[in-house]
Amino acid sequence: MEKTAVVLFSGGIDSTTTLAIAQQDGYTCCTVSFDYEQRHRYELQAARILAKYMGVDRHVIIPFSLRSVGGSSLIDDIAVPKGRDESEMGMDIPNTYVPARNTIFLSFALGLAEVVGAFDIFIGANAVDYSGYPDCRPAYLKAFEQLADLATKAGVEDQGRFKIQAPLIYMSKAEIIQTGVDLGVDFSLTHSCYDPAEDGGACGDCDSCRLRRKGFEEAGVVDPTRYADNINF
Amino acid sequence: MEKTAVVLFSGGIDSTTTLAIAQQDGYTCCTVSFDYEQRHRYELQAARILAKYMGVDRHVIIPFSLRSVGGSSLIDDIAVPKGRDESEMGMDIPNTYVPARNTIFLSFALGLAEVVGAFDIFIGANAVDYSGYPDCRPAYLKAFEQLADLATKAGVEDQGRFKIQAPLIYMSKAEIIQTGVDLGVDFSLTHSCYDPAEDGGACGDCDSCRLRRKGFEEAGVVDPTRYADNINF
Repeated sequence: MEKTAVVLFSGGIDSTTTLAIAQQDGYTCCTVSFDYEQRHRYELQAARILAKYMGVDRHVIIPFSLRSVGGSSLIDDIAVPKGRDESEMGMDIPNTYVPARNTIFLSFALGLAEVVGAFDIFIGANAVDYSGYPDCRPAYLKAFEQLADLATKAGVEDQGRFKIQAPLIYMSKAEIIQTGVDLGVDFSLTHSCYDPAEDGGACGDCDSCRLRRKGFEEAGVVDPTRYADNINF
Repeated sequence: MEKTAVVLFSGGIDSTTTLAIAQQDGYTCCTVSFDYEQRHRYELQAARILAKYMGVDRHVIIPFSLRSVGGSSLIDDIAVPKGRDESEMGMDIPNTYVPARNTIFLSFALGLAEVVGAFDIFIGANAVDYSGYPDCRPAYLKAFEQLADLATKAGVEDQGRFKIQAPLIYMSKAEIIQTGVDLGVDFSLTHSCYDPAEDGGACGDCDSCRLRRKGFEEAGVVDPTRYADNINF
């Protein structure tokens, strides 16, 4: 019987590797991206291109707006932190934290899963990248899994048990990149930067760029990222 | 110390009575409505007018779109069921069920709660109105409460414990209406219909209208609903 999964998909390194793992595991994948007026909307284009390139069954973009809520530099006009080393990133929950973001993302994924008849939801959450987000931790993901069975027609009617799969949860960035390379992921198509230039070139200096660069270095893989023209490392 | 609550607010009988209860309990209330391209978008206008009339601290409207997901007659072009009596409504989960709707609503409310510093989220969920939605049941709401503490900066840093308050959960429609009347709610301003006429007049015949009409009858309260012009009971 065909196994279908919903994959949260931003077009970055983590979610793209997660998609590759889900496909390797034999799932027919439905990817979902969110257009939430994020500063780095360029990722939506990367996600669309990658979804097509990787042959997913269906790619869904769900728009929502948190403008009227506010609370994060990823959607508001607060400066994205730059030039922080990894120890600084781990000090606190950064202002790029979007309130309840993964809960919102997983809720939509759950609705989509119900519509397409999937019980597996893949998320590229990672507990060891020092980003400090509470909604990337195993206990959180387990709690969502329990919620999912109670939240849905499919769960309540006992057609199956929902599973939140986070295959990257204990991997380092280098291990994630190595896994992606082993599975044939083309990382030149992925996008990570929180604060890209107009043409989509990465800034090289936000938390996300710095973790990405360090990951390629540690994995011993040539970094295929397209950086903004004015950057010299 | 001021107590702040987020109240899920559709401008219908249940959420309006819930808001009145939260205010009676001494909470400063922030109401949140969702613009999800629902067939009954007229409710957004009712919610805005009621929020102002009832003096809430802040009214937030969060837009999102499930067009690309589908799966419900409240957003798709499937016919809204009409003329069903209460026993029929209880037979199954109706096609007005929006996949994971309350989970999506509560997730946004949780994000908003974090931004405004609230730990109490009020929802007009009701387990006895035979509407058959899984995400209105006490076990579901308890599971979301547990998730909330793990999902948020405020919860993880132990600044408080989230509470999902569903004061209507065991009330009949008549009891809800009587409670609202006792608290001074002006039900003529509320909107319930799943399939209103162009001018916002209620159809009188969808599940929501029928439950509402029956509620007023049983409460012995004159029904102040504005029905569409061509309706005769």
